[in-house]
Amino acid sequence: MSTTLAPAADLLSRRARTGTSSAIRDLLQHAQRPGMISLAGGLPDATRFPLPAIASVAERVVRTQGRRALQYGVTRGEEDTRDACTTLFDDALDADDLVITTGSQQGLDLLGQVLVDPGDIVVCSDPDYVGSLQIFRAHRAALHGVRTTPTGFDTVAFEADLRRGLRPTACYVVPHFHNPSGTRMPRDAREHLAELSSHYGFVLVEDDPYRELHYDGENPTEAVLDPELHVRLRSVSKTLAPGFRIGAMAAPPWLRDAVVSAKQSADLHTSTLTQAIAADCLRADWYPEHIASLRVDHGIRRDVLCSALQREFGDRVRFTHPSGGMFVWVDALDGIDSTELLGHALEENVCFVPGPAFAVDRDLSIALRLNFTNASEDDLREGVARLGRARMRALA
Amino acid sequence: MSTTLAPAADLLSRRARTGTSSAIRDLLQHAQRPGMISLAGGLPDATRFPLPAIASVAERVVRTQGRRALQYGVTRGEEDTRDACTTLFDDALDADDLVITTGSQQGLDLLGQVLVDPGDIVVCSDPDYVGSLQIFRAHRAALHGVRTTPTGFDTVAFEADLRRGLRPTACYVVPHFHNPSGTRMPRDAREHLAELSSHYGFVLVEDDPYRELHYDGENPTEAVLDPELHVRLRSVSKTLAPGFRIGAMAAPPWLRDAVVSAKQSADLHTSTLTQAIAADCLRADWYPEHIASLRVDHGIRRDVLCSALQREFGDRVRFTHPSGGMFVWVDALDGIDSTELLGHALEENVCFVPGPAFAVDRDLSIALRLNFTNASEDDLREGVARLGRARMRALA
Repeated sequence: MSTTLAPAADLLSRRARTGTSSAIRDLLQHAQRPGMISLAGGLPDATRFPLPAIASVAERVVRTQGRRALQYGVTRGEEDTRDACTTLFDDALDADDLVITTGSQQGLDLLGQVLVDPGDIVVCSDPDYVGSLQIFRAHRAALHGVRTTPTGFDTVAFEADLRRGLRPTACYVVPHFHNPSGTRMPRDAREHLAELSSHYGFVLVEDDPYRELHYDGENPTEAVLDPELHVRLRSVSKTLAPGFRIGAMAAPPWLRDAVVSAKQSADLHTSTLTQAIAADCLRADWYPEHIASLRVDHGIRRDVLCSALQREFGDRVRFTHPSGGMFVWVDALDGIDSTELLGHALEENVCFVPGPAFAVDRDLSIALRLNFTNASEDDLREGVARLGRARMRALA
Repeated sequence: MSTTLAPAADLLSRRARTGTSSAIRDLLQHAQRPGMISLAGGLPDATRFPLPAIASVAERVVRTQGRRALQYGVTRGEEDTRDACTTLFDDALDADDLVITTGSQQGLDLLGQVLVDPGDIVVCSDPDYVGSLQIFRAHRAALHGVRTTPTGFDTVAFEADLRRGLRPTACYVVPHFHNPSGTRMPRDAREHLAELSSHYGFVLVEDDPYRELHYDGENPTEAVLDPELHVRLRSVSKTLAPGFRIGAMAAPPWLRDAVVSAKQSADLHTSTLTQAIAADCLRADWYPEHIASLRVDHGIRRDVLCSALQREFGDRVRFTHPSGGMFVWVDALDGIDSTELLGHALEENVCFVPGPAFAVDRDLSIALRLNFTNASEDDLREGVARLGRARMRALA
């Protein structure tokens, strides 16, 4: 049997759909080394998963609804799950307004498939979430990054770009506790963005997985957005468990139908089993208490991390004090190159994600992101002490 | 707030990534009407799901492994699940040879993404599985259909096409109990196909979800195929439960890495929870007995359907008597147009899938597919009686 490899090898050189490797996921390898304190990943704290409650739900769902919950389902998602997921939205939505996706990640990827042709302009924040940048790049979008201010995505700067002729297909924002910057957009900024969306006719995608994780009071009430151009993504990954891979997308009918059609090719439907379990959890008596307890716990960890940074580095560090979410964004730590710092940090058994991983066009070489939800208070303090030693190594 | 819809409406007219609606899924709406006997869908029998056993596994997995099984996982799939899925292959594979996908459907879609550029030739059977045709069309492949013979995909006809200059990127076959034709390829045909793959340098994709459902003795032993050009897809959907959305892909390293990269954008990873549950089920004491009992049960149902067809229609019907799988393929029923017959059948409360749904280029207007795994023996007999009355209506 002779092997003619030329055509096969050629297949891959002709395309590189997803050329950008995820720095976060590469780093997770180091994060799992024994003794490592990881401030890198965007993982929720597995010790806070309500295991006995979910175990009981899983058993009951299979035993009592298994004929449905283990069978093939409809592509848009089970009605019961869509109904339960309406509670993830503040306004009165109907189950029919939603599509269940295999995590928010799939929601974004399907939007990329149906909205983005190669060369189309997609507007995002700079810095922005690695996973969304990866998706838009995979669909060969021309990314246009807008600076984040202390109140998040800068709608005023964006409007100036639009007035100068920018014509995007879509604009992507994380309104509450943006990853990585930690910022929360005020209501008037979201309304401004909605007006721009209506006026210039681009799709506004609000990806909102952290919104329930607020530590300093409620979020602003929902802004009134253009129902024909507005897409919202929700997830249970940060509040319940990522392993379910359950996201919910609210989108206008013209876009929803296209997304469902693309999803049918992509995976037929999201697991009916995890859909049924997640729906049951969202309606459970213990769910509101679980969220309330996460808020208290995570708020304390944020304070521990911020205090430790201040104590360790004083005025040599500039960082956000986010009112929610999972990340502290460090603008600068003594002006040290963060990728170089990471090399020293790994030797001290602490890791984080360097700023360039989140960059669109900006030079973020001295910035870095720290996660505070997946390390204990002691580890957060010790992790910052190790960062201090890594800094000394870098300066040596 | 003024709404400028023109650009948004334009977005969708510029692309129609998934224009072909699935006839099967449209029909499933009728299948759920009360009183309907459905011979249409490709559903396993939910009354045969081992619910108490799976309920117990689900509870234990969450309780004892929940911190891992509910957390984010690696894109290629959990090592434990990949290891358990090596048992779905006859030859000695290592966990590292596999990628876990969100059902075989996602495996196929990812292959479409990384292998197919618009206009590339993909060879398949004619007729073939609706879902795979939909994926290849969505990726704008030029489909080249090869007739099925009583022993499946006609490798001799295919070789003649290759000699005449056909240069495909990939060839897609379902070697065991093909959907819809029910055929099983002999070992020498698979080896012939492998030689063609090596000689002409195209990727050979074997999609094999039904292989364990054999009713007339073991399958032929595995053929020796070109390891650099051979992709195999397995699934637990037909033997355990579709709701898990667990598939496994064995592919050469050059292709596996590209698939994992595309999957990271698509959904980060398949549900870690259903991965852990499926792995546990595949290793359970009861699993081999479960498969053995499915074989006995399904073999009887196949016989019931085939006997009923013969009794009802005599020499006015031509159909396969498959040695496995889920479908009987009816080449012709009195020469009646099958889509027209379906209209009458729905009035008699029985449904099936007309041949044209599976067609690539052939005229399959008088063919139809009957499923025998999701109706009781009584319903199979009554369903055929109703088909008889539908035929009388069609001839009236």
